[in-house]
Amino acid sequence: MSANAPLLYEQVAHLVERQIVSGTLRMHDRIPSVRAMSRNADVSIATVVQAYLHLEQRGLIEARPKSGYYVRARSHERLPAPRPRRLQPSRPRSVASSVLDVCREATERTDVVQLNLAMAPATASPNRRLNSLIRDELRSHPNHAGEVILPPGDLELRRQVAKRCALAGAAVAPEDVVITGGTMDAVTLTLTTLCRPGDAVLVESPTYFGVLQAIEHLGLRVVEVPNHPGTGIDAAAVRAAVAQQRLAAAVLMPNFNNPAGTLTPVQAKRELVEALTEAGVPIVEDDIYGELHFGPERPASLRSFDREGLVISCGSVSKTIALGYRIGWAISPAYSAELQRAKFFSSVAAPTLQQRVLARYYASGGYDRFLTRLRRTLAESAEQFLDAVALHFPAGTRVAPPAGGMVLWIELPASVDGMELFRTALASRIGIMPGLIFSAKAHYRHYIRLNFGVGWSDEVARALARLGSLVRDTARP
Amino acid sequence: MSANAPLLYEQVAHLVERQIVSGTLRMHDRIPSVRAMSRNADVSIATVVQAYLHLEQRGLIEARPKSGYYVRARSHERLPAPRPRRLQPSRPRSVASSVLDVCREATERTDVVQLNLAMAPATASPNRRLNSLIRDELRSHPNHAGEVILPPGDLELRRQVAKRCALAGAAVAPEDVVITGGTMDAVTLTLTTLCRPGDAVLVESPTYFGVLQAIEHLGLRVVEVPNHPGTGIDAAAVRAAVAQQRLAAAVLMPNFNNPAGTLTPVQAKRELVEALTEAGVPIVEDDIYGELHFGPERPASLRSFDREGLVISCGSVSKTIALGYRIGWAISPAYSAELQRAKFFSSVAAPTLQQRVLARYYASGGYDRFLTRLRRTLAESAEQFLDAVALHFPAGTRVAPPAGGMVLWIELPASVDGMELFRTALASRIGIMPGLIFSAKAHYRHYIRLNFGVGWSDEVARALARLGSLVRDTARP
Repeated sequence: MSANAPLLYEQVAHLVERQIVSGTLRMHDRIPSVRAMSRNADVSIATVVQAYLHLEQRGLIEARPKSGYYVRARSHERLPAPRPRRLQPSRPRSVASSVLDVCREATERTDVVQLNLAMAPATASPNRRLNSLIRDELRSHPNHAGEVILPPGDLELRRQVAKRCALAGAAVAPEDVVITGGTMDAVTLTLTTLCRPGDAVLVESPTYFGVLQAIEHLGLRVVEVPNHPGTGIDAAAVRAAVAQQRLAAAVLMPNFNNPAGTLTPVQAKRELVEALTEAGVPIVEDDIYGELHFGPERPASLRSFDREGLVISCGSVSKTIALGYRIGWAISPAYSAELQRAKFFSSVAAPTLQQRVLARYYASGGYDRFLTRLRRTLAESAEQFLDAVALHFPAGTRVAPPAGGMVLWIELPASVDGMELFRTALASRIGIMPGLIFSAKAHYRHYIRLNFGVGWSDEVARALARLGSLVRDTARP
Repeated sequence: MSANAPLLYEQVAHLVERQIVSGTLRMHDRIPSVRAMSRNADVSIATVVQAYLHLEQRGLIEARPKSGYYVRARSHERLPAPRPRRLQPSRPRSVASSVLDVCREATERTDVVQLNLAMAPATASPNRRLNSLIRDELRSHPNHAGEVILPPGDLELRRQVAKRCALAGAAVAPEDVVITGGTMDAVTLTLTTLCRPGDAVLVESPTYFGVLQAIEHLGLRVVEVPNHPGTGIDAAAVRAAVAQQRLAAAVLMPNFNNPAGTLTPVQAKRELVEALTEAGVPIVEDDIYGELHFGPERPASLRSFDREGLVISCGSVSKTIALGYRIGWAISPAYSAELQRAKFFSSVAAPTLQQRVLARYYASGGYDRFLTRLRRTLAESAEQFLDAVALHFPAGTRVAPPAGGMVLWIELPASVDGMELFRTALASRIGIMPGLIFSAKAHYRHYIRLNFGVGWSDEVARALARLGSLVRDTARP
């Protein structure tokens, strides 16, 4: 054993720690007794006692009188939520393309642990079922390659989407559904329909950088209101923003905001729909994560509080069934005709095969079972990520457990530069998303977003440990 | 036989005419001798003679001494080309959405003869080969549903597209190719990249209504220069337009303009690239029909005259391999990075399966053979359409034989309203496109566009005969 090798007690402690981080040992699990561990690890009783004391001091395990040692309750419960942020009315200072390019390029590196994306692994899709439906489709529509399904899109798929969306609390007719090339295509088409260049668009902060970029690409201005950890989109701030200026639209993500994972409560949803519709401001709801709730109920769409027909709900199969299919939708009785036009005149149609295969998939049953499994996997992965962050990241780290979706939003000690961490992490083959890209004004410089959708593995556990040590290295006390 | 029934000689004449229109009898074919026809049709020699005289007077057949009667050479050669049009600098008066909606809705009616589209039947795609490649792909990438291929898109497909594009006279590297959701997606992305709202964009007139709508949707202004029948885009007019105002971009369709089918000659191509690049105006080349040439050579892309890197060439598989796949590309060394960004931030990516299947299709050979067959079918169909128009449409009708592509651009007598004809034709279950939608100023009110891509059939022959009679009914002398 070399002089630099960890001491024996440290080796034992690390063994237990790894089992906790990897999820082999879950909270409240009893860990092996001192005697059992001594036997299994072939070390002395004294060494094990020293190891367990060390783990206890680090808050990972606790001794219960006359019972032994246990994994401490939800280590991340010790982490405070990120602080509500006051958004300064600073001059717009949008994120440089170079930053976004670097972030985008990193997403294509297959040699990194992909904590920078917001997606489950390809194996999480119902691949076997979908491939079997493709084979069916090749038989029933052998000439599909030459067939185009013009907007609004395949009727059977629109029927199925309408049925699913009814579960989110608002009746939808198939003719209100326009099939698009994914959620972002739906959001972009809706914005081109609602806005003229120079118009102001309300968004929450933080929000998905793609939405911010789409708004900028269309020559629109961004007005930000806070999305608070735990309580979601700030309805009072929305009311204030509406009073201050003319808004052409609002793009909101009340169900599991990306990056913050926040679910805006029902009362706030009602209030913000009220505030915006009173002012005649159409609401583009990005509901891409709506079906990925960790709680028991699919949260309500903003449409269920909409009396004026001003909510356009956008979604897709990208985070659930098939990211590679590029199929989504925009739902709106009021704007359906204009959205069809916008789709036709920007990119003609969505791919034929995927529209029909998805219609078959929804109709053939089993989607709810699939979703239940996917949600459970994601919720478990979120727990494991939270535990690992609590374990490895330094004091001053803050994170709110996400209510759904697939990303974790982490406030690091203020001295840590998220973009710098992005670079050093990438050098260690770990992909992360720096926080600054999630606001138009480059707030959130000491935040990062992690993709727990990737699932748990030893590789991920190692990456999070390494990431924690990189954060510790750069955090100044 | 009722009093209103056609006379015997008319019946015989009609029989021959139908065979000519349907293509059973082609130009220079010998038609049955008077004696044979008398026997076959069970009518007197005198009746056949009267019928043939009638056909001769109408210019459909000709007598050759000591040889008999023959179908006259290319009846449409008698039709003059549409007149070059002076474009009045009138105030922009864009086509109403309601008109476009009506036209779009008509394209979805399966109960009409679809002369209103610009597409070959679904059976014209290489369906069997593509489906077999899909099955291969399902085996080699069983998890493709969960896999996304971010911009610029699948490398192998970009390699293949670059190889094909080299045939159009300009070297292209795979990294210059950005995969999009079809040609219009490429054009739209390019315009969002090049232009700011309010900018002026040069287009030829007539041009594809989708391009005009995309420009309008992006808040841009249209400046039109003529595309003359036979001689194509007017380079002198381009030079004049450039001198008069700042242009943010030009969207040009030199290879088989839709709707006019015109091929802009090499010299004019060179001149207009020169004129625009001297003024620093980027050129968006819509080359969707470039591979559908009726002449022996694939016409050159504008890129082959481009010394400044200002030409962005857009194309797709929509008019050749697979309309339903929704795959196209934008090619530009200079703007590739910005186009990737624009694609990512508007709709993330193109569908995974189709990108890979098309890469396989191009790589597996046979595409050139397929194209040769498709071109021959289209060229023959164009001939038949021209013959039928010459036969059935009234004096004053003008049409230039298309040099490629799949549409016929017809100038009707000035008294005919194309939109009115659109309505009456639709009532007769014939879809056509009214000319007014092919310019931003609603020129071309007495023009229509017909889709000869649909191929020849008795149904099409009847539709064209009926259409001719509808035109005759509304044309005032």
